[in-house]
Amino acid sequence: MRRLFPIWLSLVIATAGGTALSKQEITSFTLENGMDVVIVEDHRAPVAIQMIWYKVGAADEPAGQSGIAHFLEHLMFRGTELHGLGEFQRTVQLLGGSDNGFTSRDFTGYNQRVAADRLEKVMELEADRMTGLLMTEEDVEVERQVVLEERNERTDSNPHALFSEQRNAALYLNHPYGIPVIGWRHEIAEINREELFEFYRSHYVPNNATLVIAGDVEPDLVRELAMKHYGDLVPNPNLKERMRPQEPPHLAPRRLSATDPRVAQPYLVRLYLAPERNPGEQKNAAALEILAEILGGGVTSVLSRKLEIEGKIAVQASAFYNGLALDRTTFGFIVVPVEGIELEEAEIALDQVLKEFLESGVDEDQLNRVKTQIRAAWIYGQDDVYNQAYRYGQALTAGLSIEDVQAWPEILQSVTGEDVISAAVDVLEIKNSVTGWLSGEEIE
Amino acid sequence: MRRLFPIWLSLVIATAGGTALSKQEITSFTLENGMDVVIVEDHRAPVAIQMIWYKVGAADEPAGQSGIAHFLEHLMFRGTELHGLGEFQRTVQLLGGSDNGFTSRDFTGYNQRVAADRLEKVMELEADRMTGLLMTEEDVEVERQVVLEERNERTDSNPHALFSEQRNAALYLNHPYGIPVIGWRHEIAEINREELFEFYRSHYVPNNATLVIAGDVEPDLVRELAMKHYGDLVPNPNLKERMRPQEPPHLAPRRLSATDPRVAQPYLVRLYLAPERNPGEQKNAAALEILAEILGGGVTSVLSRKLEIEGKIAVQASAFYNGLALDRTTFGFIVVPVEGIELEEAEIALDQVLKEFLESGVDEDQLNRVKTQIRAAWIYGQDDVYNQAYRYGQALTAGLSIEDVQAWPEILQSVTGEDVISAAVDVLEIKNSVTGWLSGEEIE
Repeated sequence: MRRLFPIWLSLVIATAGGTALSKQEITSFTLENGMDVVIVEDHRAPVAIQMIWYKVGAADEPAGQSGIAHFLEHLMFRGTELHGLGEFQRTVQLLGGSDNGFTSRDFTGYNQRVAADRLEKVMELEADRMTGLLMTEEDVEVERQVVLEERNERTDSNPHALFSEQRNAALYLNHPYGIPVIGWRHEIAEINREELFEFYRSHYVPNNATLVIAGDVEPDLVRELAMKHYGDLVPNPNLKERMRPQEPPHLAPRRLSATDPRVAQPYLVRLYLAPERNPGEQKNAAALEILAEILGGGVTSVLSRKLEIEGKIAVQASAFYNGLALDRTTFGFIVVPVEGIELEEAEIALDQVLKEFLESGVDEDQLNRVKTQIRAAWIYGQDDVYNQAYRYGQALTAGLSIEDVQAWPEILQSVTGEDVISAAVDVLEIKNSVTGWLSGEEIE
Repeated sequence: MRRLFPIWLSLVIATAGGTALSKQEITSFTLENGMDVVIVEDHRAPVAIQMIWYKVGAADEPAGQSGIAHFLEHLMFRGTELHGLGEFQRTVQLLGGSDNGFTSRDFTGYNQRVAADRLEKVMELEADRMTGLLMTEEDVEVERQVVLEERNERTDSNPHALFSEQRNAALYLNHPYGIPVIGWRHEIAEINREELFEFYRSHYVPNNATLVIAGDVEPDLVRELAMKHYGDLVPNPNLKERMRPQEPPHLAPRRLSATDPRVAQPYLVRLYLAPERNPGEQKNAAALEILAEILGGGVTSVLSRKLEIEGKIAVQASAFYNGLALDRTTFGFIVVPVEGIELEEAEIALDQVLKEFLESGVDEDQLNRVKTQIRAAWIYGQDDVYNQAYRYGQALTAGLSIEDVQAWPEILQSVTGEDVISAAVDVLEIKNSVTGWLSGEEIE
């Protein structure tokens, strides 16, 4: 495994999707109550996937209630007026299916995978819990303990995850992307039933939801079932536009360093505030995606070559970017120095490589290799209908359209070396950055 | 003037009060609608001061509407249903008086100073604008321009103020104290009339207000006037408790540095998250107040002696602390190095002095000198009835009681050297800190 740090860089708490786009047949429509429906037809296997995506995530939480979106996701697996405690998951299992939930900064989602002829049952169940959720004080307390334990395991007992939280908080001066998706512990501890129920009632409504049905399904039948089970749900006429506090200008780069005896190998992370994919305007984000690959996407990348192979500075040097966000997102680097190289030296080397890259421009052969890899990953990814469904749901809750999703592969292929350098010059603005050093021992 | 940087460290946008406490006669009561009234009798001059304090400040603003408390303060000077545009201030001037408004993190306040026999008129006017404010779209646009211009002058054209904003934002990871009182420019630009009116209607209510009347007044008459003019105002039965998002643990000290060609003299600022004065529990804050004086309160302070006089490291080295806050506040240092001394060297020297101080403890003579100075300032401050009134209003909107205000001078006098060291050890925790370097030229 090349990537040493998969978990704590992920912004999604639960299942994350793949990287490819669909050539499957896509059908979409909107129910009268405002609920969007996207159907991804794929008849290769007799399975169906239902995903419901709510356009509400951790960045939409009321101030002081961090973690409430994820907390509610847990409660959605308790019980409703019609279906008792745990019945949802038991039913899915009896159907021979599997199910899951996931919360991120911009969305909360639920999915089930079942044999295609069992689809209606999970649609009925999912529609039921959009409005009928029971949420007793006991449910809340039980799930609070589960969530706090989850936070213990994933974050509080993990120096990498803790440091990642502090870095993010230092990167965003105003926007709630600086707040962890799982929530600050002291706030999870205080969220009450009324707040959870209010959050549920205002956001879990058909006009705030996107239903993605994928797999071996017929659009006409899906439409019928969607109307039957979701069509009568009452929309929220007061649904608010998603407006998050935006960033002020960043005038000074920030730095932070921490030590934790459990950290075996010191490393540095540099984060920059970065533009996101926007509807009809994805070119810059595409250039950044390619930039991340060129700089730090594998053994032939610029950072790998210069810092690992030639410079013997780092055992790992990689770059990352995720453009699927409603608001300004993050572009970043990780450098893990080889033993004997100080973090300071590694950071100077990183900046030197970046500087030279901006001056010398993009190697056309490398650009073409990266594009080929991206295209290959996309074709490969088409095999996975779950990933396809996930990609549509994720994009639509990040403010993009189906057309944007479909245009993305071609936009990526159209990126030129000049586009990459221009996007790089914009994003690698040190004022917009945070640099974090994490180490096992006190750094002088 | 010893203190080189008075304006941009101030958290209060408008008039700030003095430092002393009252021996004047204090009367207080609460009207049936929940409005608190405090009367500070001082018959030495035939003047009366009215101050109304609303328990709402910049830290109570809805997310994304930073600056709305201060923006509303501006609108309060426009007009009401009964009194047209600018009539309020014209009337006060015709009465031979003066008036002002002020917004801070924890409060918004208004005051007028008039001849004592004109008090009723300003009470009538103040009560009128608590409920009758007209707020036309034009008013909002006019004041938006004024506020933006104010931000231009005080902040955007001032590298010290800009850097102060960025430091504060980096200090607080979650709490709105990290957001500037005047607001982020891009948010001031977007606040609309409905939001302003909603903010006014929910917070400018008698059960969220403290009326302080000071000067040459008779309590019985003030009570009568308060009941006459304020007694019938309708309280807000849904007034929410002031709950701000609190800080998560800070795990890594943060650093930031900026350069601006307008900065003639480089300096460094170190901020620590610090406890505030709490009702019935002011001892720790008193120790911190004395700590700030001992470390950096003048030519005989530890930092002055070690860094300025003996070390020739700094032209200024001072400490500051303001315990009057609802939530965790800030303890800090400023060091302005002498020419030829790098910021890094100055910072190392600062940390060395702090370390030695914690080891060697408090000099009893110095402690007594500081206490004597504080007592003298308090006695001196009693001469100013405005300061007395301000101090009560400020304390009451920071969650303290009249008894807390009156107990404060004795608590300060009771602080021991051990108290100071214990408070210092707690507060000077580097993980809770931000260190900022500001300089005229690029720092290597």
